[in-house]
Amino acid sequence: MKFSTARIKGESKILMSKENDQNYLLLGEAAAKMNDSAVSLPATLLECIQEGEVFAEKANRIYEWSYAADDASLFAANEDLEWEAPIPRPAKNIFCVGKNYAEHAIELGSEADIPEHLMLFSKTPTTVIGHKSVVPNHNGVTAQLDYEGELAIIIGKKGRSITREEALDYVFGYTVINDVTARDLQSRHKQFLLGKSLDGTCPMGPYIVHKSMIKNPNHLHIQTKVNGEVRQDANTEQFIFPVEEIISVVSRGMTLEPGDIIATGTPAGVGKGFKPPRFLQSGDIIEITVEKIGTLINKIE
Amino acid sequence: MKFSTARIKGESKILMSKENDQNYLLLGEAAAKMNDSAVSLPATLLECIQEGEVFAEKANRIYEWSYAADDASLFAANEDLEWEAPIPRPAKNIFCVGKNYAEHAIELGSEADIPEHLMLFSKTPTTVIGHKSVVPNHNGVTAQLDYEGELAIIIGKKGRSITREEALDYVFGYTVINDVTARDLQSRHKQFLLGKSLDGTCPMGPYIVHKSMIKNPNHLHIQTKVNGEVRQDANTEQFIFPVEEIISVVSRGMTLEPGDIIATGTPAGVGKGFKPPRFLQSGDIIEITVEKIGTLINKIE
Repeated sequence: MKFSTARIKGESKILMSKENDQNYLLLGEAAAKMNDSAVSLPATLLECIQEGEVFAEKANRIYEWSYAADDASLFAANEDLEWEAPIPRPAKNIFCVGKNYAEHAIELGSEADIPEHLMLFSKTPTTVIGHKSVVPNHNGVTAQLDYEGELAIIIGKKGRSITREEALDYVFGYTVINDVTARDLQSRHKQFLLGKSLDGTCPMGPYIVHKSMIKNPNHLHIQTKVNGEVRQDANTEQFIFPVEEIISVVSRGMTLEPGDIIATGTPAGVGKGFKPPRFLQSGDIIEITVEKIGTLINKIE
Repeated sequence: MKFSTARIKGESKILMSKENDQNYLLLGEAAAKMNDSAVSLPATLLECIQEGEVFAEKANRIYEWSYAADDASLFAANEDLEWEAPIPRPAKNIFCVGKNYAEHAIELGSEADIPEHLMLFSKTPTTVIGHKSVVPNHNGVTAQLDYEGELAIIIGKKGRSITREEALDYVFGYTVINDVTARDLQSRHKQFLLGKSLDGTCPMGPYIVHKSMIKNPNHLHIQTKVNGEVRQDANTEQFIFPVEEIISVVSRGMTLEPGDIIATGTPAGVGKGFKPPRFLQSGDIIEITVEKIGTLINKIE
């Protein structure tokens, strides 16, 4: 099960698909046509996720019904879609883990920068854009725009002080994020928020893949290309803090809520790690692929 | 004009008052009774602020009409109120400026810690609680809970790359915030988000005071007492980065939206600054007064 959000003729729609599907099911339209109050859906994917575990069950019922009904008006083809982020407007900042791959900590500093304890910062909701959207170049504000390919966790259930053992029960699914960063602002302002929150610097998607399709989030190949050249090539098994640990530490005394997004950190190979650094330029195309999740593509203005 | 949110018999209400008023006008109820579509209001104070400048004009009209109508059912007395934060659920994390008073930067480190550039971090929306609400003690999660009395800016108009000269036009009003901090988590996790985001660690209120009542936000007395003892006693004229500069720097490349909250930093006198440190204990009562804005009182669980 994969969920996404896209505009079709200007209107925002919730889409659902399964592996190898040629087309995307218009989930809201299908639910309305079923005309069964047991499967009625709210207007946005965020609100669907906020409904809790019942949403995945509803979605499966709607999907089965729609394929049986064989009604072409309930499906959209790739070329009809103007992608949005799966959650175009999160209800709080996006949580981001810093330096969660040892080699990346080293490329930005030294072995002393490998964190003993989880580092957590955030990106504002105004950073979020969809697959294939253009990232503003922010000329005049930054001269050091950089990419960071990441696996992101979507929380599915409200909880606080969640143990490592039960952590994956609190996951709704996973998506891909490009944690685009203004390195000059990040250094200048010490705390990362400003350098991480320029408008349009959080491309996300194309899909949220439901957790039922991901047996082990800590064993996924992750690769970032810039203009076709491989820059980051790693596996989430290199996480310093695996997904269960992240959820456990972040929720210690702080309630996590359905629809919360936690980006898990980026591997070695960012532009700043090269000598000399290779920051993003206007027209660059960044492609991030996470195994079993999908490929997120964006261009710099 | 002061705006607040409180529960009366369990229902959340928007309140309005002016200086020296004995009672609070139930703004939503009064608007409904006026039965004039030109003054109709949404359900929450956040949504009212999101309407833009027209809201303050509407509120004034409703207020004049209500006092003329002399209808006691439209007013509530202090003893009827269970205070909530003026914005009980912000639409993104609360922005917080770090080390904006030189003496506070020194008490936490040395002169080298006085920032050259604005430091910005955030607190999650789940931290927000109201005037007179109890702050959880988070025993087992932190042993170093500390207070930080602060003036906070409420943004009233959407904008990006706002100049210093026009910055105050983007303000809706001001409130008081206690940026309660778990010092051990703040140090351990380097980036401040985790140490600043335990549930219930952002008491806010009692009121948002409209900007029309505050000629100069950079000249307000601010004082914090713990169990009646003065701990912080300063004036916002000591800001390293005044309100106009904060809005200008924060909005460089990042869109600010109506209802956004920016806490402006805390003066010297926090618990960690004492030798030995004086962290908060169960039962402690913290009172923060900002001149012309109000007094925020909260107790530790």
